[in-house]
Amino acid sequence: MTLTAADKVTIALADRSYDLLIGPGLLGRAESYDGLPTAADAVIVTNTTVGPLYAKTLRQALGARYRRIHQVDLPDGESHKDWPTLNRIFDALLGAACDRKTLLFALGGGVIGDMTGFAAACYMRGVPFVQVPTTLLAQVDSSVGGKTAINHPLGKNMIGAFHQPVRVVADLDVLTTLPQREIAAGLAEIIKYGPIADATFLDWIEQHLDALVAREPAAIAHAVKRSCEIKARVVAADERESGLRAILNFGHTFGHAIEAGLGYGEWLHGEAVGCGMVMAAELSQRLGLIDTACAARIRAIVQRAGLPVRGPALGADRYLELMRHDKKAEAGEIKFVLIEPGGRAVVRAAPDALVSEVLRACTG
Amino acid sequence: MTLTAADKVTIALADRSYDLLIGPGLLGRAESYDGLPTAADAVIVTNTTVGPLYAKTLRQALGARYRRIHQVDLPDGESHKDWPTLNRIFDALLGAACDRKTLLFALGGGVIGDMTGFAAACYMRGVPFVQVPTTLLAQVDSSVGGKTAINHPLGKNMIGAFHQPVRVVADLDVLTTLPQREIAAGLAEIIKYGPIADATFLDWIEQHLDALVAREPAAIAHAVKRSCEIKARVVAADERESGLRAILNFGHTFGHAIEAGLGYGEWLHGEAVGCGMVMAAELSQRLGLIDTACAARIRAIVQRAGLPVRGPALGADRYLELMRHDKKAEAGEIKFVLIEPGGRAVVRAAPDALVSEVLRACTG
Repeated sequence: MTLTAADKVTIALADRSYDLLIGPGLLGRAESYDGLPTAADAVIVTNTTVGPLYAKTLRQALGARYRRIHQVDLPDGESHKDWPTLNRIFDALLGAACDRKTLLFALGGGVIGDMTGFAAACYMRGVPFVQVPTTLLAQVDSSVGGKTAINHPLGKNMIGAFHQPVRVVADLDVLTTLPQREIAAGLAEIIKYGPIADATFLDWIEQHLDALVAREPAAIAHAVKRSCEIKARVVAADERESGLRAILNFGHTFGHAIEAGLGYGEWLHGEAVGCGMVMAAELSQRLGLIDTACAARIRAIVQRAGLPVRGPALGADRYLELMRHDKKAEAGEIKFVLIEPGGRAVVRAAPDALVSEVLRACTG
Repeated sequence: MTLTAADKVTIALADRSYDLLIGPGLLGRAESYDGLPTAADAVIVTNTTVGPLYAKTLRQALGARYRRIHQVDLPDGESHKDWPTLNRIFDALLGAACDRKTLLFALGGGVIGDMTGFAAACYMRGVPFVQVPTTLLAQVDSSVGGKTAINHPLGKNMIGAFHQPVRVVADLDVLTTLPQREIAAGLAEIIKYGPIADATFLDWIEQHLDALVAREPAAIAHAVKRSCEIKARVVAADERESGLRAILNFGHTFGHAIEAGLGYGEWLHGEAVGCGMVMAAELSQRLGLIDTACAARIRAIVQRAGLPVRGPALGADRYLELMRHDKKAEAGEIKFVLIEPGGRAVVRAAPDALVSEVLRACTG
């Protein structure tokens, strides 16, 4: 099966609604950018890895629409998702006297998307931006839903904003050149949508995991589209995470602790989430929410995707300390996203002793 | 006339609506904080000038409501309205493991309000905050309407967010200890509401200017309340400044250029706005929108308030360059807020040559 036309998923958020375009070759096609807000200036924010591969193609596709197209090349990696790097975007915008209609384009993975989105949220109190995600993880997760942020030394994504993009252009062709480790990281977020929201999709993932790992276009296309559909539904129901949306953080409470404990960038975000899902499934099982077969199934799928299933040996106390800083925690009580049979998730606390057992069983 | 009860003005913004309480003695009264969102932690953000005067009183008034009350003391002044100072708020919040229900209290003038509001907008992608303005200017302008920001070396308020407070507590007693220069700066923003929105209020201001300068309580109370009522109406009609709200920037295009050209903190914001209104009235007159008597009247009122009516000699070209960076500018064209007879304002461009004439007539 080859895709000939772009699939479209709409995020329905009243006056902040927008379309996700999903398909091969979209990045370099001028029509992908039809109907965006008019502006004198466009600014492509990318990194030193992705920029050389795709910035020229994007510039050409945008060419006729903007009087000036600027480009900001940031250093690559989660360790640069901080204020000094973000400020380079502001320096460029103000240095070029960009006005408050300026349109930003995030060309890169999740780090570029998060930083460009946060810069767009704050520049002159808000300018529009477009997500052009170039990793599988960004296509199925971070580029959709309007969560933007930078890290603080004391916690991941602690400083940020809800700021929806005006479009997401997910070009499936860019996935062909991605390192296998990045594909696996993206699969972690795809796998996530099964246990929390769609048992049928989890069955499909299990059946097509080899095809996904091998990047078979039809399998990837379906996985990206279905993931975006589920995320669109959840985000439309709870844009600012006052309830339901928290289920999208399945695996993230443990995962963020792994990332912070090792230092950002040591593990990829998707790797930490993959391992975090194994831990969260284990905790769900020990709390009696699912049976051991279900927890074992999650572990097996994560492992087949090429993701780590054992966390680093930080010590249970250090994990607990890091998780108490999680954004879902309230008054020091850690809230875990746990799963139930049939593709459902719940958010709840768990006894420290039980969490420590899980950590001892799943780390080192 | 003595006020015995607090006046209340409501900013009507659907689920972001909130009340402004205006009256003497409100800061230290526990009832001023009735009905705020519940939280385990409250954080008072103040500066080294205001903190010693009022933080203890505020803590006592809040005492029974929060498990922990933290305090962050920032250095005083517009020159500190920057990222490193803002980051001290994040350091404190994360260092104390404050969760995303934490309530911030901005205890100070416009700089503290802008920075606390922006920190609240960004911390964990948004926590609630309360404005407790301690200057006349903050009470009638910056604490109402949800504009928050920090400065960038290339422009004032360039990095920020729209984030509405959950309450504004304007205690008129705090104005009695304010330096006269700060009273004058506040009067600039009060005077502003006359020519842009309410000719009757302008007449009232003209008649009561001596009483306002002398801080007569009844006059101050009326001026604060009427200013907040006008601002509430404008903000409710155009929260994110897509149109009408821009009229609140009367005097600010010239004023921001003065502040940026001299270096932030050299003139008070209200002083720059006062002088900027004289320039904007002069430009309005040269464009034929108002007659010379009307422009002279604005100048006389500004002067009687104790504000500067001549700008610093930066040179017309430097003024123009600075104004092209104004947030209202579009594609390099400066948009001025100009006035018409009868308490009305319009936003429009003007020929550089004419603006230069105004600058030569009103500076040096």
